[in-house]
Parts: sequence; structure tokens; C-alpha cells
Amino acid sequence: MTNAASSLNISGMRQKTAAIVVIGNEILTGKSEDKNASFLIGEMYRLGVALRRIVVIPDDVEAIARAVRECSEGFDYVFTSGGVGPTHDDVTIEGVARAFDREVTRHPELEAMLRGYFGEGIDAARLRMADAPDGSELIRGVDMRWPVLAVNNVFVLPGVPELFRKKFESIRERFRAEPFHAHTLYTREEEFDIAPRLDQVAAAHPEVDIGSYPTFTRDDYRVKITIESKEQAAVERARDELLNLLDAALLAQVD
Amino acid sequence: MTNAASSLNISGMRQKTAAIVVIGNEILTGKSEDKNASFLIGEMYRLGVALRRIVVIPDDVEAIARAVRECSEGFDYVFTSGGVGPTHDDVTIEGVARAFDREVTRHPELEAMLRGYFGEGIDAARLRMADAPDGSELIRGVDMRWPVLAVNNVFVLPGVPELFRKKFESIRERFRAEPFHAHTLYTREEEFDIAPRLDQVAAAHPEVDIGSYPTFTRDDYRVKITIESKEQAAVERARDELLNLLDAALLAQVD
Repeated sequence: MTNAASSLNISGMRQKTAAIVVIGNEILTGKSEDKNASFLIGEMYRLGVALRRIVVIPDDVEAIARAVRECSEGFDYVFTSGGVGPTHDDVTIEGVARAFDREVTRHPELEAMLRGYFGEGIDAARLRMADAPDGSELIRGVDMRWPVLAVNNVFVLPGVPELFRKKFESIRERFRAEPFHAHTLYTREEEFDIAPRLDQVAAAHPEVDIGSYPTFTRDDYRVKITIESKEQAAVERARDELLNLLDAALLAQVD
Repeated sequence: MTNAASSLNISGMRQKTAAIVVIGNEILTGKSEDKNASFLIGEMYRLGVALRRIVVIPDDVEAIARAVRECSEGFDYVFTSGGVGPTHDDVTIEGVARAFDREVTRHPELEAMLRGYFGEGIDAARLRMADAPDGSELIRGVDMRWPVLAVNNVFVLPGVPELFRKKFESIRERFRAEPFHAHTLYTREEEFDIAPRLDQVAAAHPEVDIGSYPTFTRDDYRVKITIESKEQAAVERARDELLNLLDAALLAQVD
């Protein structure tokens, strides 16, 4: 299912990467709030998959084709959200097909399922749900009537949040990888003041991802520092080194 | 400030477009929830600017350079969020500079402001806030001590939500355009059943953006239909035509 090179992090550990392509004018105009990317962010993290890009684009075949092609080439897994219904603004199937230079044809297995569900008097709008890029794979998830459509490393999911979630959950376990390990420190020192020490630890531990996030609205701390890696020992080494360098009297919390 | 062609919609009305580039590992790993893109979605819509892309990427110079370059070429305005602090993971300035093949140098006016604020004993971490791509513009907003940095059509904003909001609000009025006009219909008909009628109205009114959004969790309606354009009369024509075609007995609400 993977046509993209897995990213090799500095310590040589191969890491699976993912991208989310959210399709929908309604998100870009604020008519609906995104719930699917924000759901998948948490799922990817808990699965140990490194999410590297989220892109939100309009219901436009060419924009979808370009985003899907780029993400498919750059990352191991691509999840699309939205644009798979029966109306004129549902053009994700056409966009994904164009990303891979394929035709859209009626998928015989999907057609049979739809005819079984809606009966033989099924109309064109309902039958359109059997349209798929040539050579699509149907993934039968756990506890789901309808399969998830996949083309190469691209998984096509619906925009309706309840359905998106159910469909993703039905195929979730196939993405499980080594977990991330993380620690978080909170300090009352100023970010400007700790910057040289953070730089020093970050440079000494390239295999660890260190983040620094100031806040100006809290009384209990001024900077949240996150330390993360797939290697537990590396996270602990970086955390201990940082704890040695930070002012213990101004340390608010260590998680 | 604009190096991108404004998009010309089908009725020939020139429309300003925008993109948002959110920079931050913390968003992609779920350590922080995005608040800036979601804030800007509403602002752009109310300003009458067509938001065409949101992209969330890691703290990576090359990823930032590529996203900023693409968005700057494709849209009238680009807003970046995040990565402008004093620590090792703040690489937005370098990324924006690389997008336009410029060097990062110390901006004399920013340096003078920082020295005035922090005093002459200012350290390297604080002075780093004066680093900017060569030829950056400083935009002095309303009621703000610090200006907004802009390079061509790219506006560089901080990731901390309170600061992002304040800085954007200080320059907001320069983006104001013709407003969008929209109506929303709610029907208890099935989306499959109304699809042919929606297609018909959408095809007859290419200058109007018609969206169809089913729900499976509400009792009061099954599909929300949005009708939108910069031309009020066009929206009303499309709405009236659609109202004639929909089953009046199953119409739940018209806004």
C-alpha cells in the first residue's frame, strides 16, 4: 500500500508518515468547522504515525488531484476527508483518479452492494456511490457495512464527522507503529532567557524533537517545553540534561 | 503587495484570494490545537476574501519555503502562523526568506525598536527578533507596539493565539473586499433524492457556489444547502429556482 519512502529519522529509525487532505468549501468559508483533521491528529499520534501535513482545499478536481498526488509521493499514508456524496460538489473521486491518471469507472463490487442495499430500482444518484478510480481497493473494516476505498496509499473517507470517525476506526489497526515517547516541562523562566540552553540541548540531541511554547495568559508558567522521540532512552537523556540547565526554582511542573 | 493574479470568477467579478500556512510540530502532534487558522477563516469570510487553502506543516525550513512560495504565487494574500520566536524550532523567517531567494539580515528599524524596549544590554536571543528576510516591509497596525512583517504578499504572524489575533486585527482593514452574499436552506428530503435538482440549479448558475451537506444526527433536517456569491441578485435567483424545485412540505427552514 506504500509508494512513498518512509522517512528515516536521524537515529536511523524508520518512521511512518501521513498527510490529511480535507476537501470542502464549507470548511474554508467557515460554514462548517473541521472535525476530521482534528480527530485524525490525535489518532495518528496515538498510533505512532508522524503526521507531516494537513491541507484544506476547495471542491475542485484539479486542486484535489494536485494535493493528493503530492501527498501520496511524499508520505506513507494519505487520508482524504469529504467530497464523496452524490451531488455536483462531490468531486473527490474524480480528483483522486486524476492524481493517478486513472479513469473513474463503476466498481462492480460496490455496485452489487448498493443494489443489495437500495434494491433493484436504485437511481443514478445512489449508483454514483459505486464510482471509483480504476483499480481501487476496497478495505473491509471491523464492524462496518461499507468498505473504505483506497487507491495506492490514499484512503478516501467521507466528510460527515460521524461517518469519518467510524470508517477510520474500522481500519485503524493497520496503521499502528512504534509509539512516541514524550515529556513536558513547564517553567516560569522567560523564553528569551532559556533559548540558548534549549538550543544547546536540541543541538546535542538531534534524534529528539524539542518544542518551546510561550504563553502570555497564564500565571503558573511562561514556557511549555516538549521533548519527544520514538526512543524512550533518548527522550529521558534530553529531559535530564535540560533539567540540569533550567533554573530549578522556576520550574513549575514536569510531566 | 500582490504578485498573484486575482481569481476571476465566472461572472467576471475579480475576487481576492488568500491562503494560510500554519507552521508547527505542536499542531501536527496534537500538543496544541489550532486556533489561528480557525480564527482567520471567519475573518476572511467576513472581509469578503476567498480563502482557498490552509496548510499545516512542521518547523522545517524547506517545507516552509515550498509552502510559502506556492501560496504566494497562487493567491493574493498569504498569512503565516507560528515559528517566529527566539528558539531553535523557530525557523519561519528563514523559510520565508528561502521562499523568495533572499538572505536573512538584521532589520535596522526592528533592531532600534528592540533596543529601545529591552535597553542597550539586550542579548542575542532578543536581538534575533530583528532578523528578517532582506527587503521586508514593516506594517504599522492600529494600536500596536510592534509592526507586522510582510514580504511581498506574505504576512508573518506569531503562533501564540492572543498575539496572532491582535496583530491580524491591527492590519485587518487593508484586506476588506466586496462581501459574500449567502442563503441557507434546510430540507428533510434525502440528499440522494435532491441531487438531480441541485445539479440542475448548479449547472444553470455557475456564478453561484452551491453546497450540499447531509447530516445523520439531526431530527429537524437531513440536508443543509448553501447558496453563495458576491452578487446578491444571483444568489436570490438561484435560491428561488431551488425553492421551486424542492418539496415545500419537507422544507425545514430558509435563512
